[in-house]
Amino acid sequence: MAADTQVLKRPVYFGSFVVTSQVFYSTAHSFALVNLKPLLPGHVLVCPNRVVPRLRDLSKDEATDLFLTVQKVGKVVERIYKADSLNIAMQDGIAAGQSVPHVHAHIIPRHFQDLPQEDQIYAMLESEDGNLGRNYLEAQHPAVVQNGARPKFPTVHPDSERKPRSEETMAEEAKWLAGCMEEEQGQEDGGKGGLWS
Amino acid sequence: MAADTQVLKRPVYFGSFVVTSQVFYSTAHSFALVNLKPLLPGHVLVCPNRVVPRLRDLSKDEATDLFLTVQKVGKVVERIYKADSLNIAMQDGIAAGQSVPHVHAHIIPRHFQDLPQEDQIYAMLESEDGNLGRNYLEAQHPAVVQNGARPKFPTVHPDSERKPRSEETMAEEAKWLAGCMEEEQGQEDGGKGGLWS
Repeated sequence: MAADTQVLKRPVYFGSFVVTSQVFYSTAHSFALVNLKPLLPGHVLVCPNRVVPRLRDLSKDEATDLFLTVQKVGKVVERIYKADSLNIAMQDGIAAGQSVPHVHAHIIPRHFQDLPQEDQIYAMLESEDGNLGRNYLEAQHPAVVQNGARPKFPTVHPDSERKPRSEETMAEEAKWLAGCMEEEQGQEDGGKGGLWS
Repeated sequence: MAADTQVLKRPVYFGSFVVTSQVFYSTAHSFALVNLKPLLPGHVLVCPNRVVPRLRDLSKDEATDLFLTVQKVGKVVERIYKADSLNIAMQDGIAAGQSVPHVHAHIIPRHFQDLPQEDQIYAMLESEDGNLGRNYLEAQHPAVVQNGARPKFPTVHPDSERKPRSEETMAEEAKWLAGCMEEEQGQEDGGKGGLWS
């Protein structure tokens, strides 16, 4: 079934934020979404449906589903963004840099020499651009951010777009990715799963 | 069965390096090992038994087993190192910083304010201390390292021990962790799995 002929029947939450139009893949226990401010092209997130902060909070079924989704989504974004590798990172708890209290894995397609320093992606993950909590607050509750404290770390990606991407831009990318995931799914197991499974 | 009453029956390889004495947990498809140069106390690695470079190379069973092992080992190291959070990171391919061509997830227990900057752990992952390939070469084939090029990135953890830890130190830690994993395993499912499953 084509990705653009249906609508997700439920609002999808990433922490307290509604991200329904950014979701491009959904399984029994997990979903994948495009990013407000991708650190590099194809930077996406995979979350469990259940809004819990820690990996240890997930049941065996949920954890299995989450990580098989990471594997599958990683394979697809690497292919369609013509990347060479993937960074996969999970900040599991506040002391590890987690800014939205909802388990999420970052998947970031990497190309050789895509950054001045190979390790810059990690600093970016912790920078203002990588601060998902702030980014979503800025997009969905701007007044809170304007009154809030400045983030602790300077931005390390001076060329990045300062404003979060528009709903339309993200929905368009999500639609494209949904189609790519369905193709992959069709090749792998005859069409089980997909955005509206 | 106590961890110290048996011996692993096979040599365990991390890439081309033999790490048998550093292994503290083993499942049907995966194993966990202590680190030559932990970036922070309790920094351990989880690998599939099969020596393949990329996450996409793993079967569904292998990937499931790997990530459930990450979840379980993470829970235990966080508890026994009295940590607040975990960084979980996978450099999946050379362009993402992978230095040993064998799938591995880093698990790093984190405490609030354990580093001068929260994000420093990521730079450390890419530093000389975090360069697993170099570290293992240095420990097991020192002549190669002495003749080799200097690593690209400076060390960011000036207080760190420059020499890889001794076999004895690592084996001792592995034995302690093996006991902790067996306790956890016993509580969770009546003793299935463990170091010599």
